[in-house]
Amino acid sequence: MSTFNFKTIGVFVGPQKPEALAVVTDLHVWCQNREIKLIEIGVETNQAHDESIELPEEIDLLVVLGGDGTMLGAARLMGNRQVPVLGVNFGWLGYLTEFTLGELFLALDKLSEGELSIDRRMLLDIILTREGKVVATHRALNDAVINHAAPVRMIELECYIDDMFVNRFRADGMIIATPTGSTAYSLSAGGPIVHPGMSAIMITPICPHMLSNRPVVVRGESVVELVFKRAIDGLMLTIDGQQGMNLMPHDRVTAKRSKVTFDLIRPTNRNYFEVLRTKLKWGGV
Amino acid sequence: MSTFNFKTIGVFVGPQKPEALAVVTDLHVWCQNREIKLIEIGVETNQAHDESIELPEEIDLLVVLGGDGTMLGAARLMGNRQVPVLGVNFGWLGYLTEFTLGELFLALDKLSEGELSIDRRMLLDIILTREGKVVATHRALNDAVINHAAPVRMIELECYIDDMFVNRFRADGMIIATPTGSTAYSLSAGGPIVHPGMSAIMITPICPHMLSNRPVVVRGESVVELVFKRAIDGLMLTIDGQQGMNLMPHDRVTAKRSKVTFDLIRPTNRNYFEVLRTKLKWGGV
Amino acid sequence: MSTFNFKTIGVFVGPQKPEALAVVTDLHVWCQNREIKLIEIGVETNQAHDESIELPEEIDLLVVLGGDGTMLGAARLMGNRQVPVLGVNFGWLGYLTEFTLGELFLALDKLSEGELSIDRRMLLDIILTREGKVVATHRALNDAVINHAAPVRMIELECYIDDMFVNRFRADGMIIATPTGSTAYSLSAGGPIVHPGMSAIMITPICPHMLSNRPVVVRGESVVELVFKRAIDGLMLTIDGQQGMNLMPHDRVTAKRSKVTFDLIRPTNRNYFEVLRTKLKWGGV
Amino acid sequence: MSTFNFKTIGVFVGPQKPEALAVVTDLHVWCQNREIKLIEIGVETNQAHDESIELPEEIDLLVVLGGDGTMLGAARLMGNRQVPVLGVNFGWLGYLTEFTLGELFLALDKLSEGELSIDRRMLLDIILTREGKVVATHRALNDAVINHAAPVRMIELECYIDDMFVNRFRADGMIIATPTGSTAYSLSAGGPIVHPGMSAIMITPICPHMLSNRPVVVRGESVVELVFKRAIDGLMLTIDGQQGMNLMPHDRVTAKRSKVTFDLIRPTNRNYFEVLRTKLKWGGV
Repeated sequence: MSTFNFKTIGVFVGPQKPEALAVVTDLHVWCQNREIKLIEIGVETNQAHDESIELPEEIDLLVVLGGDGTMLGAARLMGNRQVPVLGVNFGWLGYLTEFTLGELFLALDKLSEGELSIDRRMLLDIILTREGKVVATHRALNDAVINHAAPVRMIELECYIDDMFVNRFRADGMIIATPTGSTAYSLSAGGPIVHPGMSAIMITPICPHMLSNRPVVVRGESVVELVFKRAIDGLMLTIDGQQGMNLMPHDRVTAKRSKVTFDLIRPTNRNYFEVLRTKLKWGGV
Repeated sequence: MSTFNFKTIGVFVGPQKPEALAVVTDLHVWCQNREIKLIEIGVETNQAHDESIELPEEIDLLVVLGGDGTMLGAARLMGNRQVPVLGVNFGWLGYLTEFTLGELFLALDKLSEGELSIDRRMLLDIILTREGKVVATHRALNDAVINHAAPVRMIELECYIDDMFVNRFRADGMIIATPTGSTAYSLSAGGPIVHPGMSAIMITPICPHMLSNRPVVVRGESVVELVFKRAIDGLMLTIDGQQGMNLMPHDRVTAKRSKVTFDLIRPTNRNYFEVLRTKLKWGGV
Repeated sequence: MSTFNFKTIGVFVGPQKPEALAVVTDLHVWCQNREIKLIEIGVETNQAHDESIELPEEIDLLVVLGGDGTMLGAARLMGNRQVPVLGVNFGWLGYLTEFTLGELFLALDKLSEGELSIDRRMLLDIILTREGKVVATHRALNDAVINHAAPVRMIELECYIDDMFVNRFRADGMIIATPTGSTAYSLSAGGPIVHPGMSAIMITPICPHMLSNRPVVVRGESVVELVFKRAIDGLMLTIDGQQGMNLMPHDRVTAKRSKVTFDLIRPTNRNYFEVLRTKLKWGGV
Repeated sequence: MSTFNFKTIGVFVGPQKPEALAVVTDLHVWCQNREIKLIEIGVETNQAHDESIELPEEIDLLVVLGGDGTMLGAARLMGNRQVPVLGVNFGWLGYLTEFTLGELFLALDKLSEGELSIDRRMLLDIILTREGKVVATHRALNDAVINHAAPVRMIELECYIDDMFVNRFRADGMIIATPTGSTAYSLSAGGPIVHPGMSAIMITPICPHMLSNRPVVVRGESVVELVFKRAIDGLMLTIDGQQGMNLMPHDRVTAKRSKVTFDLIRPTNRNYFEVLRTKLKWGGV
């Protein structure tokens, strides 16, 4: 990776903790000393999930202060852009926020010297079709979940991959996940750990009625379609655990790999499996 | 089992299928020939889930026509009574409705000769306590489920068994199930099959955040308590997949074995494991 | 529990660690001061698994120094006797060895004052029948496992419970476990956690060919039988992970609750769920 | 796919069933009529697993009569060659033997007209290194399994992916599988279904001691290494459930994608998911 000359940094803050605000102040100083412009996004008020926030055009690096949830919000801000993102956690190591506060400024220094590497994480375009027309398109870094708005209600859907019928699933819900999302909700539902460097789509049923309905992993180039044949009211589609929308009985949800990637800056001293071991408590006996 | 002289039979019909109504007519004839009174419960209109239906005092046998869902509704009708129940399915063998239409009248004959046996199925009393006061008590044949009214929202609760702290669970939800309920929702959530003749309570987390949070089976005499320390709005309690009620943030849900049992009449030619093999497709390869 | 006047203590030492031998010395002093006789069993040489060791008749308390494996060995020593057992671990909390070295002497004091409680743990009699004759009987505290002596070879067996046919299983192997054994091998194979105070038998298939072959929990009074219809050579039966014996193609393995129990002394400051939380790392996030 | 002019067909027969031998006779006729040479491989005697059998150089199509096990044997015959393989089952649909006897000759006709498509299935090279030297290399179509030769013995190994430490696993064994192998042993051990068109390697622990040790899916280009640090005797490596070899305590097993693929001829009227639904009994309720 060559030297990276960023002129404008955006900083996106999740929960309004005093430590986070102190870091923003420090960031201002660091940027001033380097004649870099710093733009605060969603800092003053807690706008992390404010849909109206837009990522300023000029930004060529985004620093995210928060947890994995904040990072998912940042992914939503991206739209079709591919700006490197550096995630900083406040005490709890995250799958997406691997830098500690103490590592932030050293990382920024290294980054300007081209020493940090970037993980290109696959994103999914989730396309909602109603009566033959696309009514919404969302982008997911982790997953899209379809289930019933009312709890303890099974859903029934047909799944197609590349126009081939896979199965009619009866389950609490269905998760369509990226490799990045394999350690999120899909893992709790029984899915495997898929290395985030892979191009793959996971289909993980939630509490399936049929016990042999195991998670399925397909190629990232595949097109996954979920169709609801039985007219059931009350189905919901949720993107990255944050954005929810109601489905109509005959809607069709299509998932395919986005053209853009989510570009995550990685620490040099910590690899994916180290994060995994820590988060899943694999150490010790 | 000694000869069983029933004087009044109740018939409870689930979905209003023509076959069911034809059976009711046949039942009337069968009863008239034997000077047995037949009372229709929830037949004329589809009142299967009508909360106002009450089980007439005089009934000493209840015939249920429908699926397992109808049987769960019948269990709710029982209140504190212990009337033997004979479940008839319409084509799909049920865990609780093991008799076919063709076997019904033969079974009634055998029953009057004392040839059929009764399975005493454990029930759970689910007690909802708010600010120190019991605000509701429900009876469950299968399970009580606590989860979030909004989909894709984790809940957090503390579980106590016989006043001993078990764990603070973070999960999609929590199932407290009877052995009868072990083949219902709990099975889809990863729980074991527990023989319905046992006295046991199962605690099965739904998609737990922590992968080692396995289902726990405790003695039927145990008292299970779920407490919600963090004030989360939107929690729901659902009994047997049918009755839902909203929880308040500091509610406490207690589950303990009911004093009464649900008395299921069993066919002599079919045992529990045969039903299991059929339902879980254990046969073949 | 009334005051417990023990006259003779046995001490059983697992791996020959210096700390363990030091404790034995301290135990001698403690016993001399109280005019209690101390008998060393399997201490001088590493005889923990020496089949020829017998538990002296006069012992009315057994102190076990080691891990859960040592405790399983101690259970084997017991034969038909029911002597209370106090398990002490050397650094790693065990499911069966809950006392630390530092707690041992305080526990002995409390025990003589009748302050400690005893957990009566169910044991299984594992009976091997060949051509209609009982050829061996073993006692299991955790489990009996049947699998193939050669790795990566599936076995096929029929399971009966109380003379009712359950299923023909094809799997890597089959575990018959006590509630105590539910947190041992059975847990790794996908079994539930069963409270050790229960009377129950678990049947857990190991890597079953059919995905719906879930673990089954039955009443402790049930008789579980495994039959090998297809003449396969090379089957093995292993008791508590320690004692292995070869099976003949038409052998029959029967498991039923022993008349005696394994009487485990429990610390007053630590309950089962606390041990569980520690062992399964349920604490933290 | 262009027209396929095969001059020499090999036929490989698994279990010596009369139907299979009849098909070989029919094949001779079919070939004679088309001036195609037919070579029988392992037909006369049951040499399916005879290591000395070699695939004749001139063969440009291999017909396999048997089950998936026969197909795995055929894959072993291939060595470094890439000859299309057409698998025919005898009554039981296989994941690899999708053609029925009745479909065989129609398929051969279609194949000569270029109407059938070929699935290029990824293979794994399994390299065994001892004291720094490669002592054996095997090719796996399904999986390589490492476990203990003695049953009920846990193994302990370190796993590295692309030189990054993944984890120290304690388990009954470890499966390294191809996508094709995802529906074989790995599935029984809890692994996901991975579409066979993917380039991926699965690492599935068998009954892991630590419950959070979930299956891991990595890119097909990755190099997976298993190292046995603790000197344990009795470890075994088994390829495709057929070839076993003993490991020495300090051996290293490396798995990486083979340069050649296994080229499976597919029926046009049956896709992967249809086979899956049939094999896993996904149909019905």
